[in-house]
Amino acid sequence: MAGNSFGTMFKITTFGESHGEALGVVIDGIESDFPLDTHHIQQEMDRRKPGQSELTTQRKEYDTVRICSGLFEGKTTGTPLSMILFNSDSRSRDYDSLKDVYRPGHGDYAYERKYSHRDHRGGGRSSGRETAARVAAGAVAKQLLASRGIQITAFTLMIRGLWCGKVLLDTIEDNPVRCPDPEKAAEMHQLILDAASREESLGGIVECRCSGVPAGLGDPVFDKLDALISQAVVSVGAVKGIEFGKGFQAASMEGSAFNDSPGAGGSFSSNHSGGISAGISTGQEIRFRAAVRPTPSIGQPQQTIDTQGKLRTIEIEGRHDPCILPRIVPVIESMAALVLIDRYYLQFGKKAPPSL
Amino acid sequence: MAGNSFGTMFKITTFGESHGEALGVVIDGIESDFPLDTHHIQQEMDRRKPGQSELTTQRKEYDTVRICSGLFEGKTTGTPLSMILFNSDSRSRDYDSLKDVYRPGHGDYAYERKYSHRDHRGGGRSSGRETAARVAAGAVAKQLLASRGIQITAFTLMIRGLWCGKVLLDTIEDNPVRCPDPEKAAEMHQLILDAASREESLGGIVECRCSGVPAGLGDPVFDKLDALISQAVVSVGAVKGIEFGKGFQAASMEGSAFNDSPGAGGSFSSNHSGGISAGISTGQEIRFRAAVRPTPSIGQPQQTIDTQGKLRTIEIEGRHDPCILPRIVPVIESMAALVLIDRYYLQFGKKAPPSL
Amino acid sequence: MAGNSFGTMFKITTFGESHGEALGVVIDGIESDFPLDTHHIQQEMDRRKPGQSELTTQRKEYDTVRICSGLFEGKTTGTPLSMILFNSDSRSRDYDSLKDVYRPGHGDYAYERKYSHRDHRGGGRSSGRETAARVAAGAVAKQLLASRGIQITAFTLMIRGLWCGKVLLDTIEDNPVRCPDPEKAAEMHQLILDAASREESLGGIVECRCSGVPAGLGDPVFDKLDALISQAVVSVGAVKGIEFGKGFQAASMEGSAFNDSPGAGGSFSSNHSGGISAGISTGQEIRFRAAVRPTPSIGQPQQTIDTQGKLRTIEIEGRHDPCILPRIVPVIESMAALVLIDRYYLQFGKKAPPSL
Amino acid sequence: MAGNSFGTMFKITTFGESHGEALGVVIDGIESDFPLDTHHIQQEMDRRKPGQSELTTQRKEYDTVRICSGLFEGKTTGTPLSMILFNSDSRSRDYDSLKDVYRPGHGDYAYERKYSHRDHRGGGRSSGRETAARVAAGAVAKQLLASRGIQITAFTLMIRGLWCGKVLLDTIEDNPVRCPDPEKAAEMHQLILDAASREESLGGIVECRCSGVPAGLGDPVFDKLDALISQAVVSVGAVKGIEFGKGFQAASMEGSAFNDSPGAGGSFSSNHSGGISAGISTGQEIRFRAAVRPTPSIGQPQQTIDTQGKLRTIEIEGRHDPCILPRIVPVIESMAALVLIDRYYLQFGKKAPPSL
Repeated sequence: MAGNSFGTMFKITTFGESHGEALGVVIDGIESDFPLDTHHIQQEMDRRKPGQSELTTQRKEYDTVRICSGLFEGKTTGTPLSMILFNSDSRSRDYDSLKDVYRPGHGDYAYERKYSHRDHRGGGRSSGRETAARVAAGAVAKQLLASRGIQITAFTLMIRGLWCGKVLLDTIEDNPVRCPDPEKAAEMHQLILDAASREESLGGIVECRCSGVPAGLGDPVFDKLDALISQAVVSVGAVKGIEFGKGFQAASMEGSAFNDSPGAGGSFSSNHSGGISAGISTGQEIRFRAAVRPTPSIGQPQQTIDTQGKLRTIEIEGRHDPCILPRIVPVIESMAALVLIDRYYLQFGKKAPPSL
Repeated sequence: MAGNSFGTMFKITTFGESHGEALGVVIDGIESDFPLDTHHIQQEMDRRKPGQSELTTQRKEYDTVRICSGLFEGKTTGTPLSMILFNSDSRSRDYDSLKDVYRPGHGDYAYERKYSHRDHRGGGRSSGRETAARVAAGAVAKQLLASRGIQITAFTLMIRGLWCGKVLLDTIEDNPVRCPDPEKAAEMHQLILDAASREESLGGIVECRCSGVPAGLGDPVFDKLDALISQAVVSVGAVKGIEFGKGFQAASMEGSAFNDSPGAGGSFSSNHSGGISAGISTGQEIRFRAAVRPTPSIGQPQQTIDTQGKLRTIEIEGRHDPCILPRIVPVIESMAALVLIDRYYLQFGKKAPPSL
Repeated sequence: MAGNSFGTMFKITTFGESHGEALGVVIDGIESDFPLDTHHIQQEMDRRKPGQSELTTQRKEYDTVRICSGLFEGKTTGTPLSMILFNSDSRSRDYDSLKDVYRPGHGDYAYERKYSHRDHRGGGRSSGRETAARVAAGAVAKQLLASRGIQITAFTLMIRGLWCGKVLLDTIEDNPVRCPDPEKAAEMHQLILDAASREESLGGIVECRCSGVPAGLGDPVFDKLDALISQAVVSVGAVKGIEFGKGFQAASMEGSAFNDSPGAGGSFSSNHSGGISAGISTGQEIRFRAAVRPTPSIGQPQQTIDTQGKLRTIEIEGRHDPCILPRIVPVIESMAALVLIDRYYLQFGKKAPPSL
Repeated sequence: MAGNSFGTMFKITTFGESHGEALGVVIDGIESDFPLDTHHIQQEMDRRKPGQSELTTQRKEYDTVRICSGLFEGKTTGTPLSMILFNSDSRSRDYDSLKDVYRPGHGDYAYERKYSHRDHRGGGRSSGRETAARVAAGAVAKQLLASRGIQITAFTLMIRGLWCGKVLLDTIEDNPVRCPDPEKAAEMHQLILDAASREESLGGIVECRCSGVPAGLGDPVFDKLDALISQAVVSVGAVKGIEFGKGFQAASMEGSAFNDSPGAGGSFSSNHSGGISAGISTGQEIRFRAAVRPTPSIGQPQQTIDTQGKLRTIEIEGRHDPCILPRIVPVIESMAALVLIDRYYLQFGKKAPPSL
């Protein structure tokens, strides 16, 4: 498998299986002499970790990040920053009965076809648990961005057809759904509990906003900022689509209504393009939305086949998320952060050049 | 600018401005000894070229591909295959009046902020004309894929809210809209002419289907097949969103309805995931849709600013596409082809290993 | 810092400081379903580890490799194979007196200029200890190569002007110098002990031979096989030069004497080019030599400056290698192995394509 | 073939065969708004071009660079700068008799084994003619470096055992050998003419010096500055070895003699390491030497085989360089320049960051 690295100047490489010994990430290319707030990293991990509320899987992982290199006396040295999470509560026996069965909607079948040999326990590398490493790296990226005035905030915009009515960013962390509309948050909360009780799962839409991004990030033509964010976000397992600004609605608009017109002092008449024009940030807020499918593990009986090709009916036991939206929010933020810090470095460098 | 290369084993690098001397592409990593059909390349170029029907810009470019290296006696040598298109009908004077003005919806403003110095003529590198190089490379990729049993077909699914009713793939090239529903094609045709007469522009949705793709393409976790296709497709200038399989609809579905269950002989109960599971092709047909914004150049008066920050009203003269859908179809196909051949090489190699 | 990854299809990323918590390596792109011999990996680690004989530093590191991912039931899964070594015997206090001083011949000064902030303990990331991760990855690469009939053997060819007279490959591991000439091995052994007693250090030359390499590896023009091996080998800290085949002697030869003429059945009249022609393996044995500088840490008093720019005289205490040749041999082999497996994958793939 | 790109932020991709239609290079990642001196590019091309003196091949190529993109009103736009050279004096018929024969010392045999199908005319892509594209890109890199106070100068240090006695850098271009010792230059000149008259060819050593390089360039551990220069320089066809500073002599030195001690104000007691310590530039002059083999094409009868494996005796007709040293000098400079500008960008960026 190649494909476990992301980024050019700020490059991360992740590893680890759901029920293996450890997960981890190596960040290569971080600037030196930056005071890293390890407490903040842990806070971000906690936003993604299982068992944080009644809405999530009850697997108990502390997701304690152990920094093994690249940090000295509290500041980055510029050498690879490695962060490791040892798995603790991995009840692999839950998966014994699924060893030879392809769970519907999961990567089991595709992995078997690609690799012939696979770690079936909890989906191995294809598990959403892999995103813990992304959040650790994303937390670091967010700190670097914040020092440059850039903030990234994602939230649950919709769950199974129920949309936010208003967006109050500072209420997001007040409810376990991570919804910026307190009233709708309560309804969504109920929707999820109801689905769980029916052994069912739900999908939804996440929106992400990046403010303070300077104009000039992104590189034509294949490394357009929206193209890179698309790769980053669609690489998150449950995501089935992404759109920027007006997105799919733009397909039904006419040019005179869609075009964003530049005005005085970096202002624009509108932000239908989502803060990115011709692949380059304009200085406006960057906005995108990701479509999240319902989680594949459900308790209901499902038809499938086993590795011998025989038809089987299975009911997936174990501790699963009835809706991944609450926990995917920090993952989406992390992916946006990884793209932005990388392109920031490429555009503006990490360090000022020596005067001649 | 970095960002003009795409792919790992089958890597393309493109160059060229809308009104510069030439556009081109270098393909690095192509297999050797492959008989290249240069006539087919030209046919693909013709599907994208301007002036092909009354629905497109009337700029006259023959887009004749000149192969400068990598081909010997009709077969690839495995060395870089370079293809160059010299610009012919570039009426740069059309743009003299726009030299110091940022056209709304165009990359002018973002390029100025990023590069300080830019070729304003026709948008320079940010022009859609850049995609000619993608189609040349994509035509080569399609031939390589076809020899492995893989076919890629895109079409216009919707224009300004008008959707296809049926999908007859072999009727796509029968109408200038490239719509697979002959009746709707005529209506769409009229919609576009009407928009043109109003100095207006339209957007729409393109769907793309890839058949014959073997299971196992794509690499977890960041180089998932859908993540790479997302980068590839969103890197096309006018695209504002992408979705796979059920896409944004998946956000409103429940798990039991969404999950694709594997059945006998590589079959599945459904294809809601669009042929990709956990980032890896399953052997099912790959399906995705791209949202295309209305083209930014319109004849109506628009408010904007000039490079001095002064408010200006402009009317864009010249020869522009009222709707880019008909011409973007082969571009989308090309981007899909470039991803697939690259991942095919990575998964299966270009050449059989020597026996020990 | 970027630059901690190497390879394209078989890509490694290393991390860790000499006196930090751990060192490690992530291998991304390994083939799946390969039975890994972890005992062999440990044997290779032991060939590089400190304290293996009286000729090496007496730091006691067990260099026990802990595989954290990518291996399941003894076989690779194709996902990232991560290997971690926790540091044990790091007497960081030995370095307290050197905190603010630039040791002559070491990277201290350059790191300070590049990063402003650095881990001074044992040189941090610039320590030769970093090569432990290379050897772990190299051991894996060697196993993959061996399964394809490729063997890599390096040895000490010269130490401080004393050259091997004969090359008996199967005697290399019989002496702690790793010299293939048993008589000269004893003399070299004495040379090193003598240098150590004088608080002095020695350099030398390593030769490496790769047999069983099929024709066709390497990619023109920048990724020539010899160019990639050069990067790989010169990236080892103590190496100051590399040459292939006749190497620097070729500069004094005439064409008629130098040219290798192909003969019957893949034979050649000579191997002056070292098994690589125009950057591509010919099927002959690959041979190269690396010049190794004397280790920089010596006990003698040396002039230098401190971080304030003040002149200082220092004597480096601690446990240092008087000559790194014996321990650098497996490192050089590893770097060659990493290049070869990567280019093997690129040329022949990891897996056979599906039949149409 | 992959492998035709080099660099990370300043990335070049080259293409073209010796007797194909054209050669070229695309530079991706150049800073914008830089006034490019196209006259200087042509001057550099002339230093490499054939037919420049009686010491070189008499093939007449004007090597006129045609810039096709990336330059507008004399200044770079930051988009890909493409430069194309159309071949003019390619007498392909000279090679008809060699179509099915592997020339000794050439890449013919290896290319056939790798690619099965190859352009035999003048060696196709394996021809030294490929370096024209490197020199075009190198000329651009040199201008960018010069604006930052960095100068690169290479010269012929030795030919077939005859060494320079002194190094007067400003006399290098006064003689066609590009030797910095006027007296030895005359002797070398005679050596080459003598070899030509004997249908023989000669090798030699090139030295390269880079002054004004700031401390801090290069990235541990695999992208050490010397490792990257090694890849760059050994990727030049005729080069069989490279060494930095004391190079292979270091293997016979003791630590106390070898170590460079830092002194006041960025000074050092010596420069045995060649301006690079632990892979990072120290601010000292960078010095390296490359071993160049005798050119393979000679008029003398040589034994070889044809593509059927039959023994053949050939005499290579045509217009060949009896010694490539004079023409390889600007190629070596170019490769050094390409590494330095890339690492300069990575360390210091291209553009100052916006103030918050």
